[in-house]
Amino acid sequence: MSDNTIPVPARRLRAGIVGGGRGAFIGAVHRIAAELDGQAQVIAGALSSDARIARESAAGWFLARSYASYEEMAAAEAADANGIDFVIIATPNDLHFPVARTFLEADIHVICDKPLALTVAEGEELVRLVEAGPTLFALTHPYTGYPAVRQAREMVRGGHLGEIRLCLVEYTQDWLMEPLERRGNKQAAWRTDPARAGLGGCVADIGTHAANLLEYVTDRPIEGVCADLSSFVEGRLLDDDAHMMVRLAGGAKGTLICSQIACGEENRLSLRVYGSQAGLEWQQEEPNTLLFKPAGRPWERWRTGHGYMGAAARAATRVPPGHPEGYLEAFANIYRGFMQDVRRVAIGQPPLRDYPGAHEGLRGLRFVAQAVASSRAGSLWRSL
Amino acid sequence: MSDNTIPVPARRLRAGIVGGGRGAFIGAVHRIAAELDGQAQVIAGALSSDARIARESAAGWFLARSYASYEEMAAAEAADANGIDFVIIATPNDLHFPVARTFLEADIHVICDKPLALTVAEGEELVRLVEAGPTLFALTHPYTGYPAVRQAREMVRGGHLGEIRLCLVEYTQDWLMEPLERRGNKQAAWRTDPARAGLGGCVADIGTHAANLLEYVTDRPIEGVCADLSSFVEGRLLDDDAHMMVRLAGGAKGTLICSQIACGEENRLSLRVYGSQAGLEWQQEEPNTLLFKPAGRPWERWRTGHGYMGAAARAATRVPPGHPEGYLEAFANIYRGFMQDVRRVAIGQPPLRDYPGAHEGLRGLRFVAQAVASSRAGSLWRSL
Amino acid sequence: MSDNTIPVPARRLRAGIVGGGRGAFIGAVHRIAAELDGQAQVIAGALSSDARIARESAAGWFLARSYASYEEMAAAEAADANGIDFVIIATPNDLHFPVARTFLEADIHVICDKPLALTVAEGEELVRLVEAGPTLFALTHPYTGYPAVRQAREMVRGGHLGEIRLCLVEYTQDWLMEPLERRGNKQAAWRTDPARAGLGGCVADIGTHAANLLEYVTDRPIEGVCADLSSFVEGRLLDDDAHMMVRLAGGAKGTLICSQIACGEENRLSLRVYGSQAGLEWQQEEPNTLLFKPAGRPWERWRTGHGYMGAAARAATRVPPGHPEGYLEAFANIYRGFMQDVRRVAIGQPPLRDYPGAHEGLRGLRFVAQAVASSRAGSLWRSL
Amino acid sequence: MSDNTIPVPARRLRAGIVGGGRGAFIGAVHRIAAELDGQAQVIAGALSSDARIARESAAGWFLARSYASYEEMAAAEAADANGIDFVIIATPNDLHFPVARTFLEADIHVICDKPLALTVAEGEELVRLVEAGPTLFALTHPYTGYPAVRQAREMVRGGHLGEIRLCLVEYTQDWLMEPLERRGNKQAAWRTDPARAGLGGCVADIGTHAANLLEYVTDRPIEGVCADLSSFVEGRLLDDDAHMMVRLAGGAKGTLICSQIACGEENRLSLRVYGSQAGLEWQQEEPNTLLFKPAGRPWERWRTGHGYMGAAARAATRVPPGHPEGYLEAFANIYRGFMQDVRRVAIGQPPLRDYPGAHEGLRGLRFVAQAVASSRAGSLWRSL
Repeated sequence: MSDNTIPVPARRLRAGIVGGGRGAFIGAVHRIAAELDGQAQVIAGALSSDARIARESAAGWFLARSYASYEEMAAAEAADANGIDFVIIATPNDLHFPVARTFLEADIHVICDKPLALTVAEGEELVRLVEAGPTLFALTHPYTGYPAVRQAREMVRGGHLGEIRLCLVEYTQDWLMEPLERRGNKQAAWRTDPARAGLGGCVADIGTHAANLLEYVTDRPIEGVCADLSSFVEGRLLDDDAHMMVRLAGGAKGTLICSQIACGEENRLSLRVYGSQAGLEWQQEEPNTLLFKPAGRPWERWRTGHGYMGAAARAATRVPPGHPEGYLEAFANIYRGFMQDVRRVAIGQPPLRDYPGAHEGLRGLRFVAQAVASSRAGSLWRSL
Repeated sequence: MSDNTIPVPARRLRAGIVGGGRGAFIGAVHRIAAELDGQAQVIAGALSSDARIARESAAGWFLARSYASYEEMAAAEAADANGIDFVIIATPNDLHFPVARTFLEADIHVICDKPLALTVAEGEELVRLVEAGPTLFALTHPYTGYPAVRQAREMVRGGHLGEIRLCLVEYTQDWLMEPLERRGNKQAAWRTDPARAGLGGCVADIGTHAANLLEYVTDRPIEGVCADLSSFVEGRLLDDDAHMMVRLAGGAKGTLICSQIACGEENRLSLRVYGSQAGLEWQQEEPNTLLFKPAGRPWERWRTGHGYMGAAARAATRVPPGHPEGYLEAFANIYRGFMQDVRRVAIGQPPLRDYPGAHEGLRGLRFVAQAVASSRAGSLWRSL
Repeated sequence: MSDNTIPVPARRLRAGIVGGGRGAFIGAVHRIAAELDGQAQVIAGALSSDARIARESAAGWFLARSYASYEEMAAAEAADANGIDFVIIATPNDLHFPVARTFLEADIHVICDKPLALTVAEGEELVRLVEAGPTLFALTHPYTGYPAVRQAREMVRGGHLGEIRLCLVEYTQDWLMEPLERRGNKQAAWRTDPARAGLGGCVADIGTHAANLLEYVTDRPIEGVCADLSSFVEGRLLDDDAHMMVRLAGGAKGTLICSQIACGEENRLSLRVYGSQAGLEWQQEEPNTLLFKPAGRPWERWRTGHGYMGAAARAATRVPPGHPEGYLEAFANIYRGFMQDVRRVAIGQPPLRDYPGAHEGLRGLRFVAQAVASSRAGSLWRSL
Repeated sequence: MSDNTIPVPARRLRAGIVGGGRGAFIGAVHRIAAELDGQAQVIAGALSSDARIARESAAGWFLARSYASYEEMAAAEAADANGIDFVIIATPNDLHFPVARTFLEADIHVICDKPLALTVAEGEELVRLVEAGPTLFALTHPYTGYPAVRQAREMVRGGHLGEIRLCLVEYTQDWLMEPLERRGNKQAAWRTDPARAGLGGCVADIGTHAANLLEYVTDRPIEGVCADLSSFVEGRLLDDDAHMMVRLAGGAKGTLICSQIACGEENRLSLRVYGSQAGLEWQQEEPNTLLFKPAGRPWERWRTGHGYMGAAARAATRVPPGHPEGYLEAFANIYRGFMQDVRRVAIGQPPLRDYPGAHEGLRGLRFVAQAVASSRAGSLWRSL
């Protein structure tokens, strides 16, 4: 009896993965995030273009089916009554577009690591593809999966901050402060190579997370950017540091800083939003706390897990207060929303789309393109 | 073809669970922790003594086999060539002993929620059982699974603190500050009921975690305790607040505080150790940071994920620096050690026992017994 | 024309100081604290028993009158129409009692560094002396001068915490972790010498500050103490580390820890109070913040300088929010209260006594005596 | 006998003050800062243009001499053998220039609140005046008086950060988030009035402190600025929020943010500097800590008062570690340097100029002018 005769709600979903073989940190993150809630299992993969790594990685994950290429995988799984319900794309950036297109055309739902594609043109084509069909598409901006971030968005939407005036967002790291790309680091090599990473370096790799977080929480698009991008490490072709002033729809202004040469910083993503009635502050490295700063009253330290948190945050929390959750759980929350939609469409319900999709991905590509253009023009304002 | 013909290293382990049905927070934690690394899957369960809850919970987790009782489960799984490799015990305290004994006697490895048993006598019997046979036994003191805690232990062992002098450990919460046991809260009801929770209330529920953490990091047993236990909530039969002075082997002194009526505290477990050359500080609620305080020099903020961390911490970390890990990942590290041993013994290798076991559980029971005895005697020192 | 014909409210007060000559940190603190608000000037002194140090120190402070002994100073100033309005005692502990008695008997107001005296008997005599006459007596427990501490007291008194249940107070340092008393450190020498420091070492030097802070904020006396005192540094005659369980009037329980061998700690005085409705937390090293923890709601971060603070805190604050105040300003607040009383009694108004006095000093001496007695008896509970 | 026959080193210095009468927070700050170390006393003043306030304020401070105007004061004090040694200017901005010129021309040393003047032209004239004569001039940028800031500068100068790459400086407040200037707040009224405050609002009031701090610590001038200034409060004529990208001599880049409408912020001045070998971080609201972030090693928490701090920080510290110092002490450190020079020139020694002077004031005026010009031009880069 085919497992497929078991209706979707009564079994774990089956997932496949492209990329993410041994040595690729992000592949393991996707697997854990997909499986964390016991709603899915990764059972198939095309884990590497290197056949030996692909095979050994598949064995290490106990995959039922290992493929030599993503094209083969898409064809075989689409034809299999027990085929995968969705595919995870965890390859370097330059493959996101072709892999995504292949699986979308095979009618297999896609959840794709960020960015959406290498260029705005590719991104626009993917948006068209996704909008044309019933197949689901999610983009993993995991930081929007944190309960405190969802609480922040809910507070902004609920009007608790009043009119939004001022936003400060930062994403600083130091992992590229040395020329690792010339010292054999594979990830550094492709991330600093325009052919594989795209137009932007740091601004694309982490600046887009910051921009997405800003737009997500404020519920307002970035309309203009004025940027100053630099490459501090000699010989580097893409930016490793970027300072930007931004303007949001509705009149708010802000600063967006990202850097991968900020010595001593790990993964310092932080957001502050100030309105006419209150302010908010969140720090990714201590993600379970949200500071709420009402005018003329003491700051409040909202913590995940409490009954006083709103519905969105509560739905994204797995443990009681004081039991810290982190990056993997946030990542799993993106999967949770996506997989909920996979189950919904399987039984004919409309998707809820409570996760970033192709549209957000395209916005990110445009943000990178305009930031780079602004910087090249000597920091002129550019519209998105 | 039986899956069992696949040797253990080439497949995910199969786990069963007793207790942890719908509504029991800790059951889901065990499932996530067991499955996080993709090394096991929970496939069988006796999830509740209530048949409907058991059945529905099993369906929610997509379990292949659901049992009406743990005795039935032990018998059936032991007889099945594709039976479970280990069982998870996630019941209320009073069942830990009989369930553990049943599965040990069925030669099925056991990983059991803390405490080991209700009484010292039961605990001694389990220790005898475990020591007599080849079957593995782990006790989930999850806080010792944090990478920073393992780093702390390594630093103490490596002599970086010099002679240990002073230890301050605290575990405070507020969830029992109201008489929830009289307001329909099931967990509060059994935890404050001597028949189901044992001799100690707060001192047993969380004080043992604090004591275990202290002994784990300092690598020294608590030798004496002088305690003052209280029940602040009227009508409560077990302590909900405890102040203790402790003495450790080798001459160190300390204070151990635990409370479940500390208004506003979530899960504030913290440890400080001061030696003749340096001090250490760790806070569970921000668990990825370890403060190292060398004499006459600035404090150092050691963070998980870095290359400068020791081998034990690195082995317990899944993501790069700045990507916070939390309670579930720490819990999964206990499972990781246990499951590594399950795989080792399956191929005839000796277990490494890098996780708390029956011995630590018995120490916890003795700690509770002596703390209660000290307090009843008007805070006389009692030896462990 | 004598300056004394200018009524007190129309001129700065004149202060004298005993002790505090060059090299004595605390002397300069007293001078700054006395003069900070422009209400007094130190104009006379007997700054050292060493004549040269006394003379040079007086010149360094531009004192108008320098004396060879405190007895001479008391006699001369009492007889001078332009004599000092009050005396500051900043000598080692063993002189507090004789100096205080001398000036009280000369009808000169006294503000004395802590402790009140060396023994309970001396303390009782000073209390009798002070209570018998009109002369004012203040004891500098400076930590009660912090605005946030005064706010804490006001919140407890106002019932915002409900019934007080649990108190945790700690005062840890590391300055005596090495045998400085055998390496030429003068302060270490007298502080570890029973003849000059009294019965207690660490418990007297800093434990009394912790006990005073606890009683001040909770507005409840410590009624019982169960202590375990140690001398970790070889050859030291007085305790350098103390763990204590305490009981307060009204049923609250607590832990009081003090240590001067806690490697890496500077001056970590902290207080937490938990009631049936809310908790409070304050840390001396970041003194402008008071955490308020209401049941079931987010923590609030109360900050000095804001309009939402109560009257007592506002009256003790000199600058707007975000302009940090520290130890000297807190110390000056003790002086502010005392000098306000000096001015009041000069014009016939009753004193307000909004500062620690002889009574608090005597409580401190009794606390030390009972803590030492408890520890010597093997940690038996002792009543205060 | 005239007090003046006492040589300067043997008496407290005599100070006068212009402005700072009752209700003016900054006047009291200057008095405390000037007198904190017992090296000076404020004895004369022209405290207000309102005669009654001037008289009553002078009485409140027990001043020996109170004047109706600063011109009268300059003339009288210059002619008096016991006249003041220096004058403090604590008036609104528009009077800084005429008052400073008046006292400089009377050969009386000047210490002036920031800014130097209203316009670049005035500032240039003051620089000429100061450079032409022997009279000393100090400008109170108090934040450079913090010991940790001086330590930061010393670490940069000592090469501990390597080549400086990236600087982030921020100064946010919320006190102007409502239109206080239309609600009777006198300070808000003049600070938002171009005639009395000058070209810049927030960028001048606090942005210049941030710019000065940045240049002070990095030891590099800001060479270019690209700004986006806003007035969020309706009807306000000057900016209340400013985002700026900056470039420093030597190739470092940075962001400078200032805002007075950042709801919930008190006085959040912070600085981060990242070099090729280490980073630094300092927060004014917790000013006794300096974070040092060496590449590949744990962060270090340098704290004021310790022996490991450098000479500059130690010289600016009055109390042992863990006894927090704050804004008033930092302010007093500016005075300490200035008054040391007053004593030096009185005995014919060359001044050391270890404090901000007219030159720094002029740089601040240029910074404001170019930031305003950049913003008006649509955020074009402008050179300083």
